[in-house]
Amino acid sequence: MAKALGFTYIANRFYSAGVPKVRAQKYVLNKYFQGEPKKSDFQIIEEELSVLKDGEILTEAEFLSVDPYMRAYMIGYKLPTDMIGGQVAKIIASRNKKFPEGKYVAGSFGWRTHTICNPSLPPKIGFLPTTLLPDISPHPVSLGLGILGMPGNTAHFGLKEICQAKPGETIVITGAAGAVGSHVGQIAKAIGCRVVGFAGSDEKCEYLEKDLGFDRAFNYKTANIKLALKDGAPKRVDCYFDNVGGEISTTIMNFMNYYGRVAVCGSISSYNDDKLPKVTILQPAIVFKELKVEGFLVNRWIDRWDEGINANLKLLREGKLKYNEKIYHGFDNMVDALVGMLRGENTGKAVVKVK
Amino acid sequence: MAKALGFTYIANRFYSAGVPKVRAQKYVLNKYFQGEPKKSDFQIIEEELSVLKDGEILTEAEFLSVDPYMRAYMIGYKLPTDMIGGQVAKIIASRNKKFPEGKYVAGSFGWRTHTICNPSLPPKIGFLPTTLLPDISPHPVSLGLGILGMPGNTAHFGLKEICQAKPGETIVITGAAGAVGSHVGQIAKAIGCRVVGFAGSDEKCEYLEKDLGFDRAFNYKTANIKLALKDGAPKRVDCYFDNVGGEISTTIMNFMNYYGRVAVCGSISSYNDDKLPKVTILQPAIVFKELKVEGFLVNRWIDRWDEGINANLKLLREGKLKYNEKIYHGFDNMVDALVGMLRGENTGKAVVKVK
Repeated sequence: MAKALGFTYIANRFYSAGVPKVRAQKYVLNKYFQGEPKKSDFQIIEEELSVLKDGEILTEAEFLSVDPYMRAYMIGYKLPTDMIGGQVAKIIASRNKKFPEGKYVAGSFGWRTHTICNPSLPPKIGFLPTTLLPDISPHPVSLGLGILGMPGNTAHFGLKEICQAKPGETIVITGAAGAVGSHVGQIAKAIGCRVVGFAGSDEKCEYLEKDLGFDRAFNYKTANIKLALKDGAPKRVDCYFDNVGGEISTTIMNFMNYYGRVAVCGSISSYNDDKLPKVTILQPAIVFKELKVEGFLVNRWIDRWDEGINANLKLLREGKLKYNEKIYHGFDNMVDALVGMLRGENTGKAVVKVK
Repeated sequence: MAKALGFTYIANRFYSAGVPKVRAQKYVLNKYFQGEPKKSDFQIIEEELSVLKDGEILTEAEFLSVDPYMRAYMIGYKLPTDMIGGQVAKIIASRNKKFPEGKYVAGSFGWRTHTICNPSLPPKIGFLPTTLLPDISPHPVSLGLGILGMPGNTAHFGLKEICQAKPGETIVITGAAGAVGSHVGQIAKAIGCRVVGFAGSDEKCEYLEKDLGFDRAFNYKTANIKLALKDGAPKRVDCYFDNVGGEISTTIMNFMNYYGRVAVCGSISSYNDDKLPKVTILQPAIVFKELKVEGFLVNRWIDRWDEGINANLKLLREGKLKYNEKIYHGFDNMVDALVGMLRGENTGKAVVKVK
């Protein structure tokens, strides 16, 4: 593949002349996942991109995202289908003045190297708008997939709109070392909450407490959850940000205060199961504690997208929002990255540097 | 025991003279329920009532209520304790002008024959205010425990505030032939919803469809729940009024539309279990359909109590609200009534006529 600069030059020249020359690589899903995703579920194919029309841009992916929802969503698509996903890409040719060449966009382009899109139109296979990245130097552009992208807005709106966390309240977060969980905890600290996290290793817990300022973090694989809650949440739990589902969620909901709010962001503990698991019934806790349990997808707030991005950018600039990335390398390693993230290899956001 | 009139006379005479003469019978719980409640968990004792103070009334119970919550709540009380519960009682002596002798009140007096209370103060062992029954003749005063009482307000506020059911939407109700469920369905029909109920016998289903106007009703003991939902709710489910918890609730929530609302009113299917049962995990449905699942207790709306009563009274007078009662007889049979109701013997409200 041509180097970025040379490639841009060629793309411009040929695109302006209306001659398509760019070949994109993309992942096509041929088989529904069973258990963990496998490379053999996919095929990487090449396709020639067509001519840029007025309003369109040509982008080259720099970072591709792997996120938990990818494991759960594909069952809703008819096969074969292009794989879904977000990416941060550089605009290498443009016929849209608002999206000039050389700038970066975040977009729901899927697992592919090059994309032509009209940023004013809804994405073809994903659900998030194509947005120009703000200038975030000296931070890496990959933050457009993390704290300044979909997971960041998931944390922002989930905590503020669904949990409605207030100063002095206690919030518990599962999947606390993940992209969303680690972010939720930091916003909650900035609000003035007591923050308790559950994560999958002692190292992650140490990171949450020492680097991110969580009040307490527990390794759910070794801790007694009830005792951990008594220890970490002496005033019990007002808000629960649920990324994982599973038995731990029932235990936490039974430890909540009256009128507690639960933001159900994901159910990663069950994504790899062919059949949904059984856990202790939630209804008694929900009714007797009058809990409000609400599931949400972040695209609910598409109309307020910039509001979330800007709020997180402000926290970042104030030093109140730290981030960590687990960077996988190479377009060919997307499946390994997805599986690794689902296994919890990442602390913070998992991304793939395309080359 | 003296007949009502004679008794009133004596009570007035002696109460005005400050000489206590009334002996009340009451149930005291000595042992936490295990499995179904048993008579041996209780003791019936007599106590002498004291003198009526200014503002107080003396009441004689005519109907006692048995409700599902009774099975679940007692674990929260230190033993021995007076048994909780609502009753409709006649005022047989009064030192409160707003509550004159001869009128009826609904109050959280517990399982007891006679009570002294100050209706302006919060109840001692229950959670609902003492309210004067409106004139509902020719209907029986026992409706103060049903459609014009706690279950009626549970139906009214649960449907309107939690489910927020709108005309044209489809609502599913479990425990549909119970006091609350049968009422919810009728309000929903009055609003203009499609109403689908699940109940525990073919007879109950016939009653719901033919007498109460439910669009469809299914016997959950014999129906395939998924097929019943496909059949009964061709536009899927917008609102679910959950009285029972259990596996059926997971199945229903998986059949809901985006942004569906679930009012969790009870979890009767698990009340008799010593250990909470396991059911298929709810989180995937909650997150991917962005459901809002909220538990509630009706005392949340104590400040709006009359609003609910009056709305139901209006429906009753317009002929849009029908009722059925399962009447047990005798103060000594409270436990049989409670167990019978928990087993689903009742269609509509279960009450006990004291004598």
